[in-house]
Amino acid sequence: MTLANTSPDRLIHPLVWRTGDGSIRRLLTIKSGMCGRNSLFVGQIGDWTWDTVSEVCGTDVYRAFGPGGQPSYLSFYYFHIRPGLTLHPDALTFGDRLEVTSRVFGFGSQSVLTLHRLRRPEPGASAGDGDAGLDPDEFFLAPRPDCAYVQNFNRWISRSHAGSNEELVTNSPPGFEYGHLPTLPEQFSPRLECGRARATGTFHDPAGEPGWDPRVTGYEVEYPVDITRDLNGVGLLYFASYFSILDGALLKLWRHQGRPDRAFLDRTVLDHKLCYLGNADFDSVLRIRLSTWRRASDHGQEIWNAEISDRASGRPLAVCTLRVRLEGTDDHDH
Amino acid sequence: MTLANTSPDRLIHPLVWRTGDGSIRRLLTIKSGMCGRNSLFVGQIGDWTWDTVSEVCGTDVYRAFGPGGQPSYLSFYYFHIRPGLTLHPDALTFGDRLEVTSRVFGFGSQSVLTLHRLRRPEPGASAGDGDAGLDPDEFFLAPRPDCAYVQNFNRWISRSHAGSNEELVTNSPPGFEYGHLPTLPEQFSPRLECGRARATGTFHDPAGEPGWDPRVTGYEVEYPVDITRDLNGVGLLYFASYFSILDGALLKLWRHQGRPDRAFLDRTVLDHKLCYLGNADFDSVLRIRLSTWRRASDHGQEIWNAEISDRASGRPLAVCTLRVRLEGTDDHDH
Repeated sequence: MTLANTSPDRLIHPLVWRTGDGSIRRLLTIKSGMCGRNSLFVGQIGDWTWDTVSEVCGTDVYRAFGPGGQPSYLSFYYFHIRPGLTLHPDALTFGDRLEVTSRVFGFGSQSVLTLHRLRRPEPGASAGDGDAGLDPDEFFLAPRPDCAYVQNFNRWISRSHAGSNEELVTNSPPGFEYGHLPTLPEQFSPRLECGRARATGTFHDPAGEPGWDPRVTGYEVEYPVDITRDLNGVGLLYFASYFSILDGALLKLWRHQGRPDRAFLDRTVLDHKLCYLGNADFDSVLRIRLSTWRRASDHGQEIWNAEISDRASGRPLAVCTLRVRLEGTDDHDH
Repeated sequence: MTLANTSPDRLIHPLVWRTGDGSIRRLLTIKSGMCGRNSLFVGQIGDWTWDTVSEVCGTDVYRAFGPGGQPSYLSFYYFHIRPGLTLHPDALTFGDRLEVTSRVFGFGSQSVLTLHRLRRPEPGASAGDGDAGLDPDEFFLAPRPDCAYVQNFNRWISRSHAGSNEELVTNSPPGFEYGHLPTLPEQFSPRLECGRARATGTFHDPAGEPGWDPRVTGYEVEYPVDITRDLNGVGLLYFASYFSILDGALLKLWRHQGRPDRAFLDRTVLDHKLCYLGNADFDSVLRIRLSTWRRASDHGQEIWNAEISDRASGRPLAVCTLRVRLEGTDDHDH
């Protein structure tokens, strides 16, 4: 009765199956609502995280409730995107086929970690092919150049006051099943790295990784939350909007440096880490503090850092660090 | 091998089937990337249009090519959203279940019209239930109060110059099958209405529909295309971004009238028509001319109109007309 794909090369409807290690694997087509130099693909990855956790943890993440009956959201705490040498999520376009393998790891009752591996499937690939799943050692120690990797660390939260997006509290739904999930070796936990980023305001460690020269320090821009774009379906600042807000701030810094918009569009993101520390109300103004470093041995590589806070209270909202490779900016930058 | 839904109430993976009249029907869950006071749901509807045309017209719309081998896009020319008395797409939120029935009508080799009906399914609904399809008479003459309706009229276009989003030309892919599609009675064709909107700059006809008093006439705002948000995966101004750009302009007018942001979020859209007349390059500045009318017999109802043009050339890009019901603005508006 339901429609299968008319041919394995069509994939208008994604194929989804479970691999031997409990991962969820998808074969799908990149559609208009999932790509571009915007935050749509990031939003799609987030939905894959919620889909996968729903699939393996016995909880419908889209309609979950805490013990007291309040809506509970599997909020994003850490979002780490690692493009591959030959697969850049930003470059995905209409009609591209993608294989996405997603595996969920247990972190107790309040949190969950999801790893995604993205790659272009072989022509004619179909459900059940290459059923080996996703080994965290590959993810953390031996990434493949033809794959992009994404890590999501999520926590169950609820509003503590109706109508306010501040002071969100942890609130796991009673039916959330996590005891059966595989666990990650401690050295792969994002807690240490996120804790350090929170404390220092950056994922970059100048002492631990020499060879980067400071370029811009503490350039500040303000951003009033855009109520026509930034709120999600439950009135919270949408996790994907943080990416757009950051891109907008980084574009302001880019222009401040006299660089052309075209080259901003042509940038290549090599690594993107974002730690969410708080949410904000619809009438908030955000303050974004930007700093950059340039690689001493290759002036085409930069680290961009952003700290987002609530202007009124100073409350930290996010820390974000990107590594980028620039194209064609030398004439404007020296 | 592939995962079905573990229960008919889950719908993590949409159920999709074909009804007796050739419509495509979906049962699905509203996810984070498909809802909110933003343009995500509009983008999702657009993907359903492309999915449905791909399904019934023998063409993979996401990777289509004209006779000369250039990429061909099934561009949006007309987007009409008609919420139902008890179903407002703007109010959809995480976890809501939706039944979407989509039917494609033939308009020759270069164009295609897709009608969507949205409604909340009965609890426990599953594939094959209520297989009556979608009658255009219901859509145009007897809409149901528990359903929302969307009409998309699309045309095959290509770039005429590499790297430019201006002067797009019609360019249908050779494999596009349309001869078998049902046709609409002439009185339902969007061509007449869009032609009039293009000529007059509005879908509202003050002479034909008395009872509306002009309020604002020709309030202009400018909008530089936002390269961090507005471009789609092939570098064109994304059709859903027009909705966001319009909302942003209407919010400026709203504030200009001294109205509070909270009430803008609380507005109810009763009808939304958008005719796309052109695309724009990434470095364009748009000029948006806004006008409003207020219902003489009910001051809570307004018509909002927008004409978007390219500031540099004056080229028209879109005409948009909304009917809205306002809440709680009387104190600020008199």
